[in-house]
Amino acid sequence: MCRTRAVLDIVGDKWALLVVRMLKDGPLRFTELKRAVDGISQRMLTVTLRDLERDGLLTRTVHAVMPPHVSYELTPMGRTLREAAAPLLEWSVRHMPQIDAARAAYDERG
Amino acid sequence: MCRTRAVLDIVGDKWALLVVRMLKDGPLRFTELKRAVDGISQRMLTVTLRDLERDGLLTRTVHAVMPPHVSYELTPMGRTLREAAAPLLEWSVRHMPQIDAARAAYDERG
Repeated sequence: MCRTRAVLDIVGDKWALLVVRMLKDGPLRFTELKRAVDGISQRMLTVTLRDLERDGLLTRTVHAVMPPHVSYELTPMGRTLREAAAPLLEWSVRHMPQIDAARAAYDERG
Repeated sequence: MCRTRAVLDIVGDKWALLVVRMLKDGPLRFTELKRAVDGISQRMLTVTLRDLERDGLLTRTVHAVMPPHVSYELTPMGRTLREAAAPLLEWSVRHMPQIDAARAAYDERG
């Protein structure tokens, strides 16, 4: 199924979803994103931002001030992705205790 | 941020989301899932199903008939995950052409 494969291309990246989520209130610099997305490596953030830019989901702006810096901002399409991903992210946070309990029960059964 | 890390645990698996999606109409056997989830390997499907069972999102039933077989079905919590993931999967399918176009433009700029 070609449709399914196409879906995978975009949805299948947890880091992308978390970066998109962190940009909901406006542009951020690389170092701000690095701090906001817990556990992401410098390398993974670089790759994720480039992929999101390539997909037309965010824009990269170089600020020619001293010292120069780069900021990242969602495009209109990126904002629709953030809205579409919000229920899933909310679900994950809300169901974490239930999932933790299920895992503990499963592991106890051996 | 502990919350973010918790979210990653669940959301970060494209295969899990696709398997959950395929189970929306009721239980399926392993071989049916393998066929339905385009591009998934036998090994990855096995791991994904075990993780989803451990998380309390699906149940595994062994049918003691001849030949014996195993089926997988969403739990009530698994069904709520499917509902929460639906907007993201729909978004992906709907925006695929726009993303393809963005990628082509990006690659042309070099």
